[in-house]
Order: sequence, then structure tokens, then C-alpha cells
Amino acid sequence: MKFVIKKEDLYNGIKIVERATSIKALQPVLLNIYIETVGTNAVKLIATDLDMTIITTVDAQVEEEGKITLPSKTLNEIVSKLNDNLVTFEMAKDETVVHVTCKKSKFDIIGISADEFPKECSNIETNEENCFEIPVKTLTKAVRQAGFAAATFENSTLLSGIVFALSENQLEVASTDGNRLARVREKITNSKEGLLIIPARTINEFAKICSFIDEDTVKIYAETNRIILKTLKTTTISRLLEGQFPQYNRLIPTDCPKVAIVNVNQLISAIDRVSVMIDDKKCFAKFEFTNNNLRISADTPDSGKSEENIDIDYTSEDLTIAFNHKYILEALKNIDSDEVKIGLNTTLSATVLKPNSEEDFVCLVMPVQIR
Amino acid sequence: MKFVIKKEDLYNGIKIVERATSIKALQPVLLNIYIETVGTNAVKLIATDLDMTIITTVDAQVEEEGKITLPSKTLNEIVSKLNDNLVTFEMAKDETVVHVTCKKSKFDIIGISADEFPKECSNIETNEENCFEIPVKTLTKAVRQAGFAAATFENSTLLSGIVFALSENQLEVASTDGNRLARVREKITNSKEGLLIIPARTINEFAKICSFIDEDTVKIYAETNRIILKTLKTTTISRLLEGQFPQYNRLIPTDCPKVAIVNVNQLISAIDRVSVMIDDKKCFAKFEFTNNNLRISADTPDSGKSEENIDIDYTSEDLTIAFNHKYILEALKNIDSDEVKIGLNTTLSATVLKPNSEEDFVCLVMPVQIR
Repeated sequence: MKFVIKKEDLYNGIKIVERATSIKALQPVLLNIYIETVGTNAVKLIATDLDMTIITTVDAQVEEEGKITLPSKTLNEIVSKLNDNLVTFEMAKDETVVHVTCKKSKFDIIGISADEFPKECSNIETNEENCFEIPVKTLTKAVRQAGFAAATFENSTLLSGIVFALSENQLEVASTDGNRLARVREKITNSKEGLLIIPARTINEFAKICSFIDEDTVKIYAETNRIILKTLKTTTISRLLEGQFPQYNRLIPTDCPKVAIVNVNQLISAIDRVSVMIDDKKCFAKFEFTNNNLRISADTPDSGKSEENIDIDYTSEDLTIAFNHKYILEALKNIDSDEVKIGLNTTLSATVLKPNSEEDFVCLVMPVQIR
Repeated sequence: MKFVIKKEDLYNGIKIVERATSIKALQPVLLNIYIETVGTNAVKLIATDLDMTIITTVDAQVEEEGKITLPSKTLNEIVSKLNDNLVTFEMAKDETVVHVTCKKSKFDIIGISADEFPKECSNIETNEENCFEIPVKTLTKAVRQAGFAAATFENSTLLSGIVFALSENQLEVASTDGNRLARVREKITNSKEGLLIIPARTINEFAKICSFIDEDTVKIYAETNRIILKTLKTTTISRLLEGQFPQYNRLIPTDCPKVAIVNVNQLISAIDRVSVMIDDKKCFAKFEFTNNNLRISADTPDSGKSEENIDIDYTSEDLTIAFNHKYILEALKNIDSDEVKIGLNTTLSATVLKPNSEEDFVCLVMPVQIR
């Protein structure tokens, strides 16, 4: 194996695939990036943690074909520190060491044979029938807005997944951890129906990769137990979660008897200030909606009290309700609108937060019961 | 107690004194900032961890005199989050709670009585006879350049201190941890002689505080067992370390038989690249000085090898020597010159690094013995 590659191209490629390298090394080879020459003008990079696989192709001038796996961390560190120049990779005769040279810098990196890298992960045979195509921006925005509510606990329950519900010309993305829920609906060109539950980690990593990808659309292949996200040079493969996801749409009230319109930035800074006196154990703030005023307050026996008042648009009956302030903050930070429409009912009812605009985005937060 | 204060003045004052608040709370009151009104136009803030005390005065409009201590962390968090406006502090009748108001934000902060705050720490009676005055810039530069070599282990041995050696019109600052040494000499106006060993933490914190202080000179009062650093509004008091500091000046060779002149930035990036393959346990790189060339290399059995060659100015006999690369990097980063003059002798001799300029700064690094 011998090839010459541009430092920035290689660095970009490593940045894309390294997101799939294993954190806990069940097998040492999963800490490595698989490198293989493709024809005379490209090199393929692959990384996998067995749940998720990322494959990308990088331009290179191939002088001798070959393949190997090299430690992701070492490779990343070396490439990031090189002078901006052409880098040469050349395999030593024993096929486990690669000589890397760049100007007056030389490295011998010890790798692991390419044969030890799991092959089944990088099977990218796809069926065009299962495919739909959407703009990268639409996908990343939907995942950011509606993916934050997924459960973060380690054990991979269904709630740690993000739902992609497909219907004619619509993609619905939703997540819930049981205490809160986020859902967004985007118009797309699609004729298939179905519900995919994608592990939150995979789709979040894909959203991050998108910042390194210079393309407008992504092709999504939904198979029985895996999903493939494909752009021109990069392919991400993830297993799907299987099971019956909660019927979340039934939980969202269609009509709320009390509605408050509040400036999003004002509300975020008010909650942020009140949070100084929020007890880490109890973790809630009190929200008192009265005539065109919202009073937010907190009280910790050892530290003291905090209180904020903000002008809002509210003319319904007075209501006092308490929330985990972090859930409200996260919902607000994902609203791309100046004002939020807060739909209330009783002290114990799920509360609805929507942008005060045409956008089809909704967050549901369960209140905390107070005496 | 009641006063009105500008948010930014208060925030600046907190940022200065909080560096002395205790990290481990032996007494809860040491986590607090002491606040006391001074006349009708100022408020005094004090924090201490019993080793070091910082006192600063902040402009304020005092309406009612009084004093209290408030938790540093809570106070900092609240003030940093307030809208940019006037803030009112008012003590409640029971004298343990302070009401803080700023526009529509209200806080009740629970404090601890000012009587519980250690008084002896804030004794700032000084004797002008023990005083010398130096530019703030000279002090902070000297501490940065010659303070990094102090021992960082927890137990407060003498080596964890930074030496201030005073002689007529000269301040010498030095530190050593036994493996390396840094020394800088600055011309000042002074007629006293003596040697002060200041805990590194205190003098480093003072150097950081200087960025918040808008003054050109600092008065230093050297007493038997403490040092006082005084600017117009801020006073820092620290205990001194007592004992016989090593005769470090005797260790610095006055003449080196072999001398290399090397570009500092080239050397830093070369060592940085080589470091990818430096074994964390052995922690050294090999330096081979040959005719106008420096080869730096490292070798880790599991990961691989690295090698760099740089053009240097060297015509003495060939020499191979090994160093803990971190010591060399730290020395180089404190050299304010484009070129470093490296004074060598044998493979086991202490090596001298000096800026290739007129500046009186020197670093000594002990080599690592290799087979």
C-alpha cells in the first residue's frame, strides 16, 4: 500500500469516521480506522463500534494498492499536527507498520491487519425501493429540535431512540423520556409509510458529521433492522431499535383552555437567574400565571430565594404550576421563534410549548407536583 | 446594611477576591465573601483561605452601614446573570439574609454573620520601611517566566514556593522542582536585601488578579512571616514559606562547551509532533545534535516511532541526549525570543536554555539517562 494524500482531505475524513470508533474497546481493532485504497484516485476510511458504521471516501494519489487498520487516536493526533502539506502513507514489508512522511516529519505507526476488521458492518448493498431523499438541513434541524427529549440512560430502551414516522410527503421526528416530549413535522417528498426508531447516538452523530459534508441532500434507506444514510462520499449505517414505541401523538392535547404568549429570550434569562436558588435535589421552579404577568420563583432552605416577574400576554384564570426548569429551558432553546405559546390546563396537566408561528413544532412537559 | 452598586464594579470586585476563597471548606465562612460598607461611597470585599487573603474596595452608594458574609459561589452566579443595571443590597432585620434586587429580579441570599469571619487575616497594618515598589508588568512577567518550575505536589515543601531574591536595584525570581530550574533577573529600584519564599499558588493568583487591576505599580511589603502586595484598591496578603532554599545559583553552569542556536517555534512544533509517540510512562524524547542538524525522536513499543529533523546552528562535537519533553516545551514557551541558545556539555549534564537575546532569563533542565 502506498498513497499520497492532502493533509486537510485526510483530516476531514478522519473527523467524519472517527465518530463511529468504539469508546470501550471490546476488540482492539474497533479503536482503529480501516484504510483501503480504491482504484488510483481514492482511499476509503471505515470506523465502527458494531452499532454504527461510518464509511467515507477521500481523494488520494494511489501508487500501490493495499489495506490496513490504524489507531484512530494516533492517526488523528499526527495528522492534526502536521505542516500543511502532502502526506505519504507507505506500508512496511511486514504489513503491520505504516510509514507516514510529511516534509521532515516521519512516523512509523503500528496497525492491525485489515482482515481483523469486521466485514459485515460495511455491507452497503441497498435496495432503491426502500429509499427516500431529504435535504440535509431539514434532517439536521428536525433532529436537533425533536431529538433532545430522548432518554439518556445507558440501557438501550426504546425511549433512548428517536422516532422517524414517515407518511405521504411528511417526516415526523419525535422523542420522549416519559417526562417530556418533542415532535416536529417537516414536509418532504416521499411516498412510503413506516416508523423507524433510530438510536439517538447514531442520528446525533450523523447530524454532527453533516457539518463536514458539503452536500445538500441525503438518501435514507430504511431496511428491516438497519438504516443507511447516504451522501455522495459518506455512508452511515445504524441498527434500528425494535419494539412498540409509545403512542405519543395521543398524549399531545389538541386544545388548551389557557394560553400564555411569552418572549422566549426573556423567559430563558429569567429562568436562568431563578435557577441559582433551585435545589439540585428537588429541581423545580414555581410558575405563577396571573393577569399579563408571569412570576417565576425558587426557594432552597440553605441558600435562599429567587424571584422574577415578566410581562406576558395572558388573560385566563390564574394558575400556579411547577416544572423541572431544565426541561423548560431545553424546550425553549429549540424554539426558532421570538415568542412561545404556552398551552396550560390544570396544575397537574401536561403543558404544551409551541413556537408562536406557523412552524409545526411542539414540546410537552409534565409538571412537578407541589404542596 | 443597605447600598446600591454598579453590576460591573461588583462583578470585578468578586472576581478579584474570590481567588482567595477556600476550596476545601474547613469552616463554612471561608467559602463566603465578607462585605462591609466603608463610609458613604464604598464597600469592602474580603476573602481568605487562611493562607492567603485578598481585600478590595468597590465604589457604591451606601445608604445604611453594616456588614455580612455571603457565599462566594452564589453571589458570583447571581451577579454574572443580572441585567446590566444598578443592584441594591439590603440586609433583612434578622441580619443573616440579604435582599438583592435588580430591576424585576429579586434574591434573598442566606449569609453568615460577619463576626464569624477570621479577623486576623485582614490585618493590613504595614511598615513603610519594609516596602519596595515595582511595575505590575515586571512582576507578572517575572512570575510567569520563572515561576513555572516550582514543585506542584500538594505537601507544602520549600520547592513549592517561588523565590524572590532582592539585592540592590535587582529582583531575582526563581523556582525549581529538583529536575529543572527557571530564573529571571529584573532591574528595579530597591535598596533592601533579602530572600522571600512565596507559596506559588499565592503569587500565581496575584498575577491573575492583575488583569482586573487598572494600575501600573504594586507596593510589596516583606515582613517576617508574610508578604503584602498592595495596589490602590486591592491588597493581597500571603504567608511566607520558611527554611533554607537550595543554593540554585550554584547549579547554573556559567560556561557551556557546546552551544546550539535553534528557532523556538520550529523546535516547539517538532517536539509536539514527536510527542505523539512518546511513552507516557517513560516520558522522554531523544535529541541528537550533529553538524547543523537536530534530530528529535521517540519510540513506543506498542504504537510506533516518530522522528523530526530541523536545521540548527551547531558546529560542536556530536551529542545525543534525552529529556522529559514536557520540561523542554515549558521552558521554550516562556522564552520571549525567536531563538533559543541551548548550552550543552555531556549526555548527563544539566542543559541550559536561554533566549538568544540580552534578556537575563535562564532555564536549566536535567537530562534523562538512556542506555
